[in-house]
Amino acid sequence: MTEFRIEKDFLGEKKVPKDAYYGIQTIRAKENFPITGYPPHPELIRAFGYVKKAAAMANRDVGVLNKKIAKAIIQAADEVIEGAYNDQFIVDAIQGGAGTSFNMNTNEVIANRAIELLGGEKGDYLKVSPNTHVNMAQSTNDTFPTAIHISSLLLSKGLTQALSDIVDTMKRKEQEFDEVIKMGRTHLQDAVPIRLGQEFGAYRRVLTRDLNRIKKSVDHLFEINMGATAVGTGLNAKPEYIEKVAEYLADLTGFPLFSAEDLVDATQNTDAYTELSAALKVHAINLSKIANDLRLMSSGPRTGFNEINLPPRQPGSSIMPGKVNPVMAEVVNQIAFQVMGNDHTICMASEAGQLELNVMEPVLVFNLLQSLSILQNGLNSFRQLALEDLTANVERTKHMVEHSVGIITAINPHVGYETASRIAKEAIQTGMSVRQICLERGILTEEELDEILNAKEMTNPGIAGGRFIFD
Amino acid sequence: MTEFRIEKDFLGEKKVPKDAYYGIQTIRAKENFPITGYPPHPELIRAFGYVKKAAAMANRDVGVLNKKIAKAIIQAADEVIEGAYNDQFIVDAIQGGAGTSFNMNTNEVIANRAIELLGGEKGDYLKVSPNTHVNMAQSTNDTFPTAIHISSLLLSKGLTQALSDIVDTMKRKEQEFDEVIKMGRTHLQDAVPIRLGQEFGAYRRVLTRDLNRIKKSVDHLFEINMGATAVGTGLNAKPEYIEKVAEYLADLTGFPLFSAEDLVDATQNTDAYTELSAALKVHAINLSKIANDLRLMSSGPRTGFNEINLPPRQPGSSIMPGKVNPVMAEVVNQIAFQVMGNDHTICMASEAGQLELNVMEPVLVFNLLQSLSILQNGLNSFRQLALEDLTANVERTKHMVEHSVGIITAINPHVGYETASRIAKEAIQTGMSVRQICLERGILTEEELDEILNAKEMTNPGIAGGRFIFD
Amino acid sequence: MTEFRIEKDFLGEKKVPKDAYYGIQTIRAKENFPITGYPPHPELIRAFGYVKKAAAMANRDVGVLNKKIAKAIIQAADEVIEGAYNDQFIVDAIQGGAGTSFNMNTNEVIANRAIELLGGEKGDYLKVSPNTHVNMAQSTNDTFPTAIHISSLLLSKGLTQALSDIVDTMKRKEQEFDEVIKMGRTHLQDAVPIRLGQEFGAYRRVLTRDLNRIKKSVDHLFEINMGATAVGTGLNAKPEYIEKVAEYLADLTGFPLFSAEDLVDATQNTDAYTELSAALKVHAINLSKIANDLRLMSSGPRTGFNEINLPPRQPGSSIMPGKVNPVMAEVVNQIAFQVMGNDHTICMASEAGQLELNVMEPVLVFNLLQSLSILQNGLNSFRQLALEDLTANVERTKHMVEHSVGIITAINPHVGYETASRIAKEAIQTGMSVRQICLERGILTEEELDEILNAKEMTNPGIAGGRFIFD
Amino acid sequence: MTEFRIEKDFLGEKKVPKDAYYGIQTIRAKENFPITGYPPHPELIRAFGYVKKAAAMANRDVGVLNKKIAKAIIQAADEVIEGAYNDQFIVDAIQGGAGTSFNMNTNEVIANRAIELLGGEKGDYLKVSPNTHVNMAQSTNDTFPTAIHISSLLLSKGLTQALSDIVDTMKRKEQEFDEVIKMGRTHLQDAVPIRLGQEFGAYRRVLTRDLNRIKKSVDHLFEINMGATAVGTGLNAKPEYIEKVAEYLADLTGFPLFSAEDLVDATQNTDAYTELSAALKVHAINLSKIANDLRLMSSGPRTGFNEINLPPRQPGSSIMPGKVNPVMAEVVNQIAFQVMGNDHTICMASEAGQLELNVMEPVLVFNLLQSLSILQNGLNSFRQLALEDLTANVERTKHMVEHSVGIITAINPHVGYETASRIAKEAIQTGMSVRQICLERGILTEEELDEILNAKEMTNPGIAGGRFIFD
Repeated sequence: MTEFRIEKDFLGEKKVPKDAYYGIQTIRAKENFPITGYPPHPELIRAFGYVKKAAAMANRDVGVLNKKIAKAIIQAADEVIEGAYNDQFIVDAIQGGAGTSFNMNTNEVIANRAIELLGGEKGDYLKVSPNTHVNMAQSTNDTFPTAIHISSLLLSKGLTQALSDIVDTMKRKEQEFDEVIKMGRTHLQDAVPIRLGQEFGAYRRVLTRDLNRIKKSVDHLFEINMGATAVGTGLNAKPEYIEKVAEYLADLTGFPLFSAEDLVDATQNTDAYTELSAALKVHAINLSKIANDLRLMSSGPRTGFNEINLPPRQPGSSIMPGKVNPVMAEVVNQIAFQVMGNDHTICMASEAGQLELNVMEPVLVFNLLQSLSILQNGLNSFRQLALEDLTANVERTKHMVEHSVGIITAINPHVGYETASRIAKEAIQTGMSVRQICLERGILTEEELDEILNAKEMTNPGIAGGRFIFD
Repeated sequence: MTEFRIEKDFLGEKKVPKDAYYGIQTIRAKENFPITGYPPHPELIRAFGYVKKAAAMANRDVGVLNKKIAKAIIQAADEVIEGAYNDQFIVDAIQGGAGTSFNMNTNEVIANRAIELLGGEKGDYLKVSPNTHVNMAQSTNDTFPTAIHISSLLLSKGLTQALSDIVDTMKRKEQEFDEVIKMGRTHLQDAVPIRLGQEFGAYRRVLTRDLNRIKKSVDHLFEINMGATAVGTGLNAKPEYIEKVAEYLADLTGFPLFSAEDLVDATQNTDAYTELSAALKVHAINLSKIANDLRLMSSGPRTGFNEINLPPRQPGSSIMPGKVNPVMAEVVNQIAFQVMGNDHTICMASEAGQLELNVMEPVLVFNLLQSLSILQNGLNSFRQLALEDLTANVERTKHMVEHSVGIITAINPHVGYETASRIAKEAIQTGMSVRQICLERGILTEEELDEILNAKEMTNPGIAGGRFIFD
Repeated sequence: MTEFRIEKDFLGEKKVPKDAYYGIQTIRAKENFPITGYPPHPELIRAFGYVKKAAAMANRDVGVLNKKIAKAIIQAADEVIEGAYNDQFIVDAIQGGAGTSFNMNTNEVIANRAIELLGGEKGDYLKVSPNTHVNMAQSTNDTFPTAIHISSLLLSKGLTQALSDIVDTMKRKEQEFDEVIKMGRTHLQDAVPIRLGQEFGAYRRVLTRDLNRIKKSVDHLFEINMGATAVGTGLNAKPEYIEKVAEYLADLTGFPLFSAEDLVDATQNTDAYTELSAALKVHAINLSKIANDLRLMSSGPRTGFNEINLPPRQPGSSIMPGKVNPVMAEVVNQIAFQVMGNDHTICMASEAGQLELNVMEPVLVFNLLQSLSILQNGLNSFRQLALEDLTANVERTKHMVEHSVGIITAINPHVGYETASRIAKEAIQTGMSVRQICLERGILTEEELDEILNAKEMTNPGIAGGRFIFD
Repeated sequence: MTEFRIEKDFLGEKKVPKDAYYGIQTIRAKENFPITGYPPHPELIRAFGYVKKAAAMANRDVGVLNKKIAKAIIQAADEVIEGAYNDQFIVDAIQGGAGTSFNMNTNEVIANRAIELLGGEKGDYLKVSPNTHVNMAQSTNDTFPTAIHISSLLLSKGLTQALSDIVDTMKRKEQEFDEVIKMGRTHLQDAVPIRLGQEFGAYRRVLTRDLNRIKKSVDHLFEINMGATAVGTGLNAKPEYIEKVAEYLADLTGFPLFSAEDLVDATQNTDAYTELSAALKVHAINLSKIANDLRLMSSGPRTGFNEINLPPRQPGSSIMPGKVNPVMAEVVNQIAFQVMGNDHTICMASEAGQLELNVMEPVLVFNLLQSLSILQNGLNSFRQLALEDLTANVERTKHMVEHSVGIITAINPHVGYETASRIAKEAIQTGMSVRQICLERGILTEEELDEILNAKEMTNPGIAGGRFIFD
């Protein structure tokens, strides 16, 4: 049977499980917000640990926090950073109150652990108070945004590494497939030849831009608003504290964090998040396009394009024996859709900011951290399980180029668009090759055709052959 | 040189072109909102004409509007309905003020035309006042929503006709292609046989559901809020007027319009629009999926699926001679994306309603009417220019079925999934046919295989053959 | 130390924990998709239990499934329905492969449990095969959509109950506040009087429409595609089986489920989900508007509207003592934003369907079930913790009406809009009351003003007073 | 009666109005795409003029285009740049075919004008061919993206100027309101004092970040893909031409345009647009938040916050005399919603790119250019008509601060959060002031209270007073 202690706040009393590190305000939040069932992201808990630790250090240094209490809070915060109390963070990921419940959950866990360290009993807040001591010179309105910044930075490291890795893989594939000639397609219709390596080169480049975009967006998170307190004016936060807390946070996290020049601005505006989410969304769109391309190119095996092979990772069907599906590409599409939907939520939440604060930050950070996490996870799986062992069907792609009509385009400069159109039409209708028609009609000689219709040459800029229509 | 007259309101004076039917408030709105450059939708102007006409008739009947003035207003409104003054509606489609500028533009045009009819000079509002007479017992907050309802209904008629027509076309194609056997694909991978007619049947069914969904959504627009006046309480609108104005509007438009039971509700809530827009969006998604399918199936001609042919409608490329692209399907995709984006705007606008009114209605109706219009236009073009003359490549689709591995599924019930998997794997690796392997391995007899591997049979429910693994 | 058994499929071997009910394909999926870390929704597991049970019963009845095996499968499925193996469902909520991994996770859990029941050892699939027996006459492509339908129906029951309850609460508040006169506001500007009860009446009505919309959308989920197998053609599913499985599912779940008339359509199209999600989104928008209104009306206590009081549920600030925030309304906004974002993801996923299947269903169902769950949770919390004990500040709202200028509107019919404008302007500039100006200027008598400016009367349709400008 | 000429292409013949500069392909597009009724954006036409001029110059220089023809094309293009033929651009803004119709419309107009200049008759394409000459070494797939880049750059100049101007205005307001003390609000609940100038400072800063974000995004548009031709491989485009055409375009437009390092990438990927649209969307969100704040702060005049006054721009109501609404802020909200919806469409369109091309570019550019235009228009109007003459109600905001409970926060460091909570609760319940309670209870002295409760001091960082609870 669970034993309880009684805690009080200005709204009344609540029973708290005797062993719990959280307290009355966490209990209230638990009762008020049984929404998603998802706990806060572990990296957000860790980030809050850093925030509380740095604040205690700064408050101690500027002489407003008793050193013994400070020491206990710092140790408790360290344990939070290590994840030792993740199970004590029981407030819902989506919660009213701009994150106050999350901040108070942290304050209570740290206070109670500090009390223990100081030899007291959990709940004896005269020893260490969640508000007066742990939250000293702080507000949800500065600690929560700061923790969002730090947790986003922590997750972004993994994401940018994953992106960097996939760029490397694309580069290897670009080189590996440099000589694989295939039909280029526009509008899903046969166009002109291209090399598979060129296609992977384009993937590499767009992903590289994604990487740079995300890195740049993340930079804006280095600006934090600790010391803003309630509305950004810094009421109850000494200037020296504001300076010190940012320095400590930079030291503790290893990120070049600094105090925002204008704390009012930094407290009410959420564009750092919408900017990052936008970068993630743009990346998701590009990823989805790549996944779509690979699914198209690997369609078949007998009734599709069948230009490439994605390594088989699981039986594709519970009913069709031997079927293998492009599951790793499909999960990438789904991650992309999730990230795009998350961005929508984030934008709605950001737009709903009012005056000095955006109270919708909990749903915003829930979606932002999820996007960061699932993109990282998806990129790593996609790279390892789909891209690294991807192979090309070289003979088939070559065959398709040779039998296509699209190569007619190379003949344009020599005969004009209008004549070329007539040849193309005849080729499509009769099934004859472009070459054959040109020869039979005496339009071009064998030597000219050899030069003009060289497929490899067609994949590089220039006009083959020496005699132009304009001459 | 333009000549001007001077008009006044409680904010001051403005010069109005002497010949203009609009007046000072239209001029103010024109100056305040130079946003999109798009004028209001013609059907919205027409709808407003109905609203003003019905209001004048009802006000006349209940004895608050002078009969001579009423007659002039009614005639002026009739001319607005006919589109005679569309060029006098110069306020921007996106405007602040919940549509007040649009309502006042209408009030001014009708007042000035009525003044003319009564032998006065434009601007002599003592004769007929835009506010006191034309807008009598009305507010922007009831006339604008009512006009949105009516214009949406007018456009919906065309849209549902277009949808109904495309459903008919799909039905004809379903029948035409009933015997065309082709490979079904899941995950873009070869699955089991299906008939092209079955695919068009699925298109017909989903579009039929779309039609029904849109029709049902539109039904909610029959409920109008004329008489709500400013906040839905009906201040300054007599109950008899409220009854009569709805009756007149029903008569004039031919729609079964009726007065909302709760005018407060009907004035502040915009769910009738979000519901209709949602139905349009669901339809757009389905349309886009169909367009994608047709683009896939017509991919080629030589390096794609090449199962169907969309009729050529324009040269596909400015550089590649003879190229023809699935342009009618592509424009359908784009319309779908536009409708989905419009829905996003509509949802944001709807969510921004506050207390007694949603002041974001101008941007809402701009997007809603655009969605209705472009869907209708797109459906008609798609049907006439892409679907009606669409043909199938019967020999090719048959050939693909016969050479596929996917037909192995039919063998499952006879040999079990595990054995079938081994056969499939061998077929893919060796290029041998499923039939051949079964025969060579002595797994099934020729007679059994003839029965089991009958492609047409495979496209209907059931297990072919008589000997099961379970026997 | 974990002990393992070895399992095989056509791609090779994998180690499976000896005690696990899941098998090799679940292991593969676990390795392939470490994406969100979220397991499948418990109601989806339950729904899959129903599907497998009904399929086994139908297969037994039509004579293709051995009775002893059927009995074991049915018992195992019953245990799944009860939630006994929820911890064995370890595949990620977002997964490639159209749900194959989820279907196979279920097939494996049920097969292994059935094997146990038949006295075998887990992994001995010769006894009961996940594919051949548990998945008999089924495909992911019919079982997964059917399970989505059933789980959505299960969750919708709770949601519609929650909505119905909140409608009742709104009705009670509508009655309770029927006499509370307050200023109506449009554009956040003082408009004309309204009763607080009328505002809650409008909330009741829009939520009632939401309830009906959701109920209607849910109706479409009764149509299921069991027997469609791979692409909807019903290959390997006997017609009698198709009939029976739907009947059994209807019996087991209590929902009036029936077999779709066109299984090809029902397998490839996902409009039943986008339609339901759209209804949820429209509801979310309306909810958010209501939450916004309540937050506005409760703004203060001293520097805001302060018309109503939301019951205090938790200390509002970690730094500002005594502050109480409208946290229950704020969480409703956030839920609304989440549902809108989820809808975005669902729409993207739906649009990505190709040919015979929509492989994006896992992300689709993840978002759909989440929307259903969080709306239900949020509605219940909102009702219990914010609405039921909401109170009005009657004296303050009355005072504001009496000191407003907006009541001038009632004078319009008696003096004309232009004269009324001048009075209003004077009132705003001088701070005098409308009444006072009318009297001093001799515009209306005391008796007339008493009648015309009766605030309660102004909240109902009609024109007070007997002398009109038009007379 | 319209006279016609007959033109031909490989699909057949069409009648073209004899005087028209456009030709057969434009006619086909007009027939195929009667979708929105909107013509292409004028800046897109201008951009296409630059593209065709530069291409002719480069083709002439590398010796493939006859000098006389080149001269005529160049002059015709100049006239297009000047807008002389805007009425000849009749293809719909939303069109299938990746912009081919738009490119061909341009090619035909320029060809026919060049023919005229060379003394020929319109339609005599042997003189100057739309494809062979005007489109020489070009494809829709390089000219259209390049024109999108240039038109976006042209519009971005105006937008960034408008943003820069509004930043300046915000700065002036920040200074003007530096001493205006008012209550800060979080959760719409009274928080702690802030200065109105600080709020405008926050607006200035977020808009400055928006300006920088947009400028950075625009930078990516300097990279163009002229010479990519059909799929980015540069088939039919000489390397020297590719170099020269970019140089000429840079010269002609004044933008530092350069040729993309990888033309395959630059042809198929559309992330430059999604990135720009994302920056616009983030800006729209911030703008909407500011507009919301101003609408809140100006709510009233008697029953709202009434802290600021937006200058009256038009009578606010057709029924409520004297009412003035925040219409300029409202139109900004609507523009923001439109931009957010447009971004949605743009993202969908971008995601739909396939292999070597994104054929959805027409709908993409339609939305992108609209977003750029309406933001610029809206910012200028907002600044001129709402912000520049915005005033503060200094007495009222001061009064509200003095009567608030929120100032209790400043007392925290002196008495602790728990004691402060009790004081706050008593103040709210009794209506007594915080000061009074502190004095009566002997908690703080008058001198201490004077120092601690100095409102101006509270708006800057620090802890007032000398005696802390921690001492």
